[in-house]
Amino acid sequence: MSQPKQLLDALQWRYATKVFDATKKIPADLWAALEKSLVLTPTSYGLQPYHFLIVQDAATRAALLPHSWGQKQVVDCSHFVVFTARTEMHKADVDKLVARISSVRGVPAESMTPYWNMMIGDVVNGPRGKIAHEWAARQCYIALGNLMTAAAVLGVDACPMEGLVPMEYDKILKLEGTGYKTVVALALGYRAEGDKYASLAKVRYETADLIKVI
Amino acid sequence: MSQPKQLLDALQWRYATKVFDATKKIPADLWAALEKSLVLTPTSYGLQPYHFLIVQDAATRAALLPHSWGQKQVVDCSHFVVFTARTEMHKADVDKLVARISSVRGVPAESMTPYWNMMIGDVVNGPRGKIAHEWAARQCYIALGNLMTAAAVLGVDACPMEGLVPMEYDKILKLEGTGYKTVVALALGYRAEGDKYASLAKVRYETADLIKVI
Repeated sequence: MSQPKQLLDALQWRYATKVFDATKKIPADLWAALEKSLVLTPTSYGLQPYHFLIVQDAATRAALLPHSWGQKQVVDCSHFVVFTARTEMHKADVDKLVARISSVRGVPAESMTPYWNMMIGDVVNGPRGKIAHEWAARQCYIALGNLMTAAAVLGVDACPMEGLVPMEYDKILKLEGTGYKTVVALALGYRAEGDKYASLAKVRYETADLIKVI
Repeated sequence: MSQPKQLLDALQWRYATKVFDATKKIPADLWAALEKSLVLTPTSYGLQPYHFLIVQDAATRAALLPHSWGQKQVVDCSHFVVFTARTEMHKADVDKLVARISSVRGVPAESMTPYWNMMIGDVVNGPRGKIAHEWAARQCYIALGNLMTAAAVLGVDACPMEGLVPMEYDKILKLEGTGYKTVVALALGYRAEGDKYASLAKVRYETADLIKVI
């Protein structure tokens, strides 16, 4: 368990890195921990309606750059993560989760029929089924928040990127027809010494302006 | 900085707490750190388009319970956080951020005109302006992911709750006309000894199923 000061120091230290040192790579053991953090992200019903694409191929990154508002973090970072979310939710998605729970916990799938019905009646045929991609995109944002905090705690820099053209990403990453679409991205690595944004004061509204106690 | 094992142990330890010990409260210093973590959440452009409501009043919590799929965490947890997002984004939201940057960093607001224009052309009058509430809701999910990870790292239990009726929450929390709407909630506190979910194996898909390297 960490001390509060240790956590807050990490969250104060992090910032949306504008310039990465392209020569510095995240060591394999740290990257393995960040991947594992991503996998451990909590999601609605545990459905994990996403894929995380780690784009390491230089040519692919170069192709993404013009569709990323020209942000050079795409090509200079150590690891570039694209968060993609399910376009729709089908019965097969729910069956797959129930099979996985059954396998991991050694319980019969039939014992989860009420849970199966609840998921089908919500994310497939119910209210969230109608906005399934948006619901899945929100789960991607949980993963994004989790990964940014995990990276900060481990001393790894990151830059979240909403500034990209999802349709162009989908083409370059060959997502068409896969049932997944690009939502957001996160560049990870180490800040360049010359990144002047690193030393700017962090701007947040006053606590009293953001948090109300009722 | 934490070691990878320390972080992963915390993420393995956490689970969606079903039964809170209603007698255990988060100590003030830990809660202050969690509040500060929330405030430090990164958001698109830094716009922080949300309010976090900490619902501590017992009568209000009791009123929310029937609109929370009957999940008793609402009344039994130590701190109950409701994430609310801006319904629309206006020029005043952008002006407010620029004024805040100007004040915190001691730079003239005029020097940020290009940044102001970019925000206005995106989240107010541009593509994200058309889906401003959804865009703001996604920022709430960054905060949710951040706060869940922060809580785990500090040894505080939590249960995320999408299972609530936002319109009923909005009425009870008197959000109508404020420009904010309920998106999601997080109950925080300490697990009850008898919560059988605490000891169940965590269910996630295989890393190879969630993460693809390109």
